[in-house]
Amino acid sequence: MAEKKLVEAITSMDVDFAKWYTDVVKKAELIDYSNVKGCMVIKPAGYAIWELIQRELDDMFKATGVENVYFPMFIPESLLQKEKDHVEGFAPEVAWVTHGGLAPLTERMCVRPTSETLFCDFFANDIQSYRDLPRLYNQWCSVVRWEKETRPFLRSREFLWQEGHTAHATAEEAAERTELMLDIYAEFHEKILAIPVVKGRKSEKEKFAGAKATYSIEAMMHDGKALQAGTTHNFGDGFARAFDIQYTDKDNTLKYVHQTSWGMTTRMIGAIIMVHGDDSGLVLPPKVAPVQVMIIPIRQQAEGVLDKAFELKEKLKNFRVKVDSTDKSPGWKFSEQEMRGIPLRVEIGPKDIEAGKCIICRRDTDMAGLPYEKIECNLDEIEQKVATLLDTIQEDMLKKAAGHLSANTFEARSKEEFVRLFNEKTGFVNAMWCGDRACEEAIKEELAVTGRNIPYQQVKLADTCVYCGSKAEDMVCWGKAY
Amino acid sequence: MAEKKLVEAITSMDVDFAKWYTDVVKKAELIDYSNVKGCMVIKPAGYAIWELIQRELDDMFKATGVENVYFPMFIPESLLQKEKDHVEGFAPEVAWVTHGGLAPLTERMCVRPTSETLFCDFFANDIQSYRDLPRLYNQWCSVVRWEKETRPFLRSREFLWQEGHTAHATAEEAAERTELMLDIYAEFHEKILAIPVVKGRKSEKEKFAGAKATYSIEAMMHDGKALQAGTTHNFGDGFARAFDIQYTDKDNTLKYVHQTSWGMTTRMIGAIIMVHGDDSGLVLPPKVAPVQVMIIPIRQQAEGVLDKAFELKEKLKNFRVKVDSTDKSPGWKFSEQEMRGIPLRVEIGPKDIEAGKCIICRRDTDMAGLPYEKIECNLDEIEQKVATLLDTIQEDMLKKAAGHLSANTFEARSKEEFVRLFNEKTGFVNAMWCGDRACEEAIKEELAVTGRNIPYQQVKLADTCVYCGSKAEDMVCWGKAY
Repeated sequence: MAEKKLVEAITSMDVDFAKWYTDVVKKAELIDYSNVKGCMVIKPAGYAIWELIQRELDDMFKATGVENVYFPMFIPESLLQKEKDHVEGFAPEVAWVTHGGLAPLTERMCVRPTSETLFCDFFANDIQSYRDLPRLYNQWCSVVRWEKETRPFLRSREFLWQEGHTAHATAEEAAERTELMLDIYAEFHEKILAIPVVKGRKSEKEKFAGAKATYSIEAMMHDGKALQAGTTHNFGDGFARAFDIQYTDKDNTLKYVHQTSWGMTTRMIGAIIMVHGDDSGLVLPPKVAPVQVMIIPIRQQAEGVLDKAFELKEKLKNFRVKVDSTDKSPGWKFSEQEMRGIPLRVEIGPKDIEAGKCIICRRDTDMAGLPYEKIECNLDEIEQKVATLLDTIQEDMLKKAAGHLSANTFEARSKEEFVRLFNEKTGFVNAMWCGDRACEEAIKEELAVTGRNIPYQQVKLADTCVYCGSKAEDMVCWGKAY
Repeated sequence: MAEKKLVEAITSMDVDFAKWYTDVVKKAELIDYSNVKGCMVIKPAGYAIWELIQRELDDMFKATGVENVYFPMFIPESLLQKEKDHVEGFAPEVAWVTHGGLAPLTERMCVRPTSETLFCDFFANDIQSYRDLPRLYNQWCSVVRWEKETRPFLRSREFLWQEGHTAHATAEEAAERTELMLDIYAEFHEKILAIPVVKGRKSEKEKFAGAKATYSIEAMMHDGKALQAGTTHNFGDGFARAFDIQYTDKDNTLKYVHQTSWGMTTRMIGAIIMVHGDDSGLVLPPKVAPVQVMIIPIRQQAEGVLDKAFELKEKLKNFRVKVDSTDKSPGWKFSEQEMRGIPLRVEIGPKDIEAGKCIICRRDTDMAGLPYEKIECNLDEIEQKVATLLDTIQEDMLKKAAGHLSANTFEARSKEEFVRLFNEKTGFVNAMWCGDRACEEAIKEELAVTGRNIPYQQVKLADTCVYCGSKAEDMVCWGKAY
């Protein structure tokens, strides 16, 4: 335990969760702050996670027919203004380019906060006939929103994301695509990030600027707060009418297309940290861990130890594996591997080699001061053992996160219970709601919580709104949000 | 041949090469123009090429220890100004952000034209000890340069690229890295893009703003003009001194780091078009062809034809393969496959099926009006045949391009010969040069050519400068550039 002090201590999660978060982000070397206020430098350990996320997600998109494209980063002001709700939603938070080279521009342009207007402008010319539909486009890029308060990964002035933009012949197809992408987002979170989510529809107040309907997946962080982890939007033909995107249908009549958009961002890395992390640092799900196994030689100066370590690395070449052969002490190396959230550590020293064995430690079972699970493994069985352990870790991490979500999700059938729950706990509270915006705002005012979404999985808890007592159809998932 | 007219004709290369280029770019659906002047929309067929380029190149970088990162897209004006030559080089062509949201910024920022200043600012804090070196970073992103005249892929106000930034303990290591990356760029062009290049060093006039030395690879287009296809820069300790990037060495003294940067862009797609294309459209090297094989059913309404086409697709699943089962005529489909540069076409109809055969056509052998090479292939041998053909095409395309480069590269030993060559031909002319800037400018003024680079492979053609007659050490490769 003394060795642990070698790595500077991070704040305990229970003492100050926000401080713990920024400590982990820095000490695990995911990001650094930059000279550009509100923008971050994503360092190799952070960017490698993003690359794994991109590859997995991109494959899932492409399997549904999506094609990648790249659109300009600038939007002329007149284009941004074409859809009324959209410009009202975004104009207050965009960065404006006013000069190109030494001369002022005749029309200023914003750096894209999102690209609906550019895609619509393109679709208006590109789509002529029903044969051109559907258009299923996606781009990986960075976007800019001039936020006042920023936090690494969770809210920054520039962030990386993917934005999908599709155009369809019918309203039904657009609705199907909106839900399909939400399903993919949810599946990705569960299977790849080991994060369970609540799928649902946003209220009128919370929906995207210009959308007919917005859907979200909401994840619960370790502190019980909600993180909106992905959104999909059904635009109906609203943008098509504003941008005049029409096609000639089989019956030879002109019709408006129906559109969707959907996005997920580097925020997901923030979710991974806040769902899985612990007081020793980051804990990465094996599927997005840039290094899955760190081999740490013990008494590496002793004859044959380093050779054996690299021999094991070669045996494990189907995994993402590294040997830490630096001149740091084993204890220091352990702490670094823990801080970086590397799922498995293999310890190998002279005695192990003599016995034909090694020790494998799971990162994910180091919780609440409990000792790691240490597994003795025959050297000739290591490949199979590592494969099994990585699968087990991936599953166990999802189970643990699902247990946390379930243990901190409550139901309220009366106003009193609703208020008491939020006064006593931080978590999700399911409760019936009338659908009235004034009521929604009163709840936010009194309890500092928002309706995260109207979950797909509805339970009719009552006939009336938990807060105002009016008639209620929908159960809403309420919570404090990041 | 009549069928060919179904696809709108493109301008012939020999009639108007520039028009041919833009026709191909549009008709092969690589890009579309956008409402943002000087910026383009990269469509799926174009972006898929970029994705293949990225994956191949990224693997080559990582094999040399390079790690990917992401830095902010904005540079505060004061940061851009820290290195004198650098700001003079870039300030006239950057886009300036002056407002964030509704308020003016206290300091304006430019959208990165390149990110040396940001990386230096970061390294100044990040690098403390010799243990922190080398730093081998790369990012894939878009950059903005406010060009007056733009052309798709070749010169646009926004373009996609990778920019590598490294910091080293010694001048030697920085020099080695600069040359290593040039070697990788050259190897990538030859092996992956089938484009031979001339490797060399830029003159003082042509080097990068702030660099000690700039190296380039220069490719020859079909029209004999040069395209600078990639550059690497050795900064020495110039930026380190401007940004105070020092480290404590093993001997406990403070030393400046030595830096490099290197970049390649979506311009490479322009090079592919102009090196390999022909009057039927694009010709893609198999390694970067998003679709390598297009299966076109003949009389697809006949029983069993479509089934067999999809059966072949399944057999060819190790390649990037598609079946064109649309209701267009085979002739139209042929023209589209040709226009898009798909390396192989498989034709399969009722008679072929009866004979247990199919016809395979090579895209790359359709040149100068010559008929395609049509290869009869037994259906049970198709997998091996396609593998062999794709390898052969990749090799043959490089050979052909190398032949073109060699046939259009000349040597001049006198001013008269030098002038005559450029008056008669468009190509590369190797000639001795004195190294004097005034002479370089006079040559540009008289002949509209520039020294592309000082090739690694030197031949001592004479003792004096081909143009001014002064003493000359270096042979320079001269040419007209895009």
